[in-house]
Amino acid sequence: MRIPSKHIENAVDQIASLPGIGRRTALRLVLQLLNRTESEIQQFSEAFISMKEYVKKCTTCGNVSDFEVCAICKDSNRDRSIVCVVEDIRDVLAIESTQSFRGIYHVLNGIISPMDGVGPSDLNITNLITRVQTEDISEVIFALSATMEGDTTNFYLYKKLKDFDVTFSTLSRGVAIGSELQYADEITLSRSILNRQPFEL
Amino acid sequence: MRIPSKHIENAVDQIASLPGIGRRTALRLVLQLLNRTESEIQQFSEAFISMKEYVKKCTTCGNVSDFEVCAICKDSNRDRSIVCVVEDIRDVLAIESTQSFRGIYHVLNGIISPMDGVGPSDLNITNLITRVQTEDISEVIFALSATMEGDTTNFYLYKKLKDFDVTFSTLSRGVAIGSELQYADEITLSRSILNRQPFEL
Repeated sequence: MRIPSKHIENAVDQIASLPGIGRRTALRLVLQLLNRTESEIQQFSEAFISMKEYVKKCTTCGNVSDFEVCAICKDSNRDRSIVCVVEDIRDVLAIESTQSFRGIYHVLNGIISPMDGVGPSDLNITNLITRVQTEDISEVIFALSATMEGDTTNFYLYKKLKDFDVTFSTLSRGVAIGSELQYADEITLSRSILNRQPFEL
Repeated sequence: MRIPSKHIENAVDQIASLPGIGRRTALRLVLQLLNRTESEIQQFSEAFISMKEYVKKCTTCGNVSDFEVCAICKDSNRDRSIVCVVEDIRDVLAIESTQSFRGIYHVLNGIISPMDGVGPSDLNITNLITRVQTEDISEVIFALSATMEGDTTNFYLYKKLKDFDVTFSTLSRGVAIGSELQYADEITLSRSILNRQPFEL
């Protein structure tokens, strides 16, 4: 597919640099952009520049925010003694949308993954240790992905935090609500039998 | 999904304004962008602005180009007596990649579609009539989509051009090469039986 314009080619390269977008899709998107007015394109482009310029990391929890301290950390109605450790901001959004958690967060901004060259020093871990040391925290919830990388990170954090006076918990694992038993994978099913819970009416 | 930053929200809105990209995907892409350096974001954004600024429509055929006249129209090795009428630049790319066509193109930049409010005056049709009138053209190939809109557009163009001394042709329709007969749709199969071709060894 030889595109007859190096400016279009360049725009396609940029869109195709986003994860999961191939060159064919990128071309379709770029041609749609090309049909927009100059001021619409200006708006489109400036959105990313001003995002990069103005978006900060909350100095307390590492969540993205337009301010030094994010809205959740600022909220005096939240329980500051329970800290939920997550991998990135999308996990915060997912948990917030359940409206089931009134504690606060700590965003690691990644997960320990030697294969991708991500070690503990690349993550927002030192801050977490300081928080547990200095703030009035009684429980740390490990809410990382149920993968090998997630387990490794959980273990690393546990080792670093176990001497402080806090309890640790993790998300319950089991058969998803609304899913049929026969489609659950073996490991999940075996865990949910071993960790069976008292029946409640 | 309440995003805790209006700058990120704005960037997500812009990405989600592209066709076929939902807000969840947009957020994933935007967070990936947020992790890039300032100069990378600058490059990303400027690609679209300079595309809008520098990309022209070829004054002859309407194809996109970095110059007044596109590379295909400029190419003296091409047969200027056969004009292939297509809907947009992606069709040019698709036909060019077959390396089976040595004529030139005319890009309508759309297709007559009353449902979407696109009429003949919105398309690059007047130019096509002028070309057939003034250039030394002997054949016009209608290479539009095999849809109702494509057929409408073919018919409109035919009516406008039929009094000129040119022959008209259209892409052959039939069972795709490499596909199994049982999976061909009924209309295509019926057309390809009616329009059967002499068997050649």
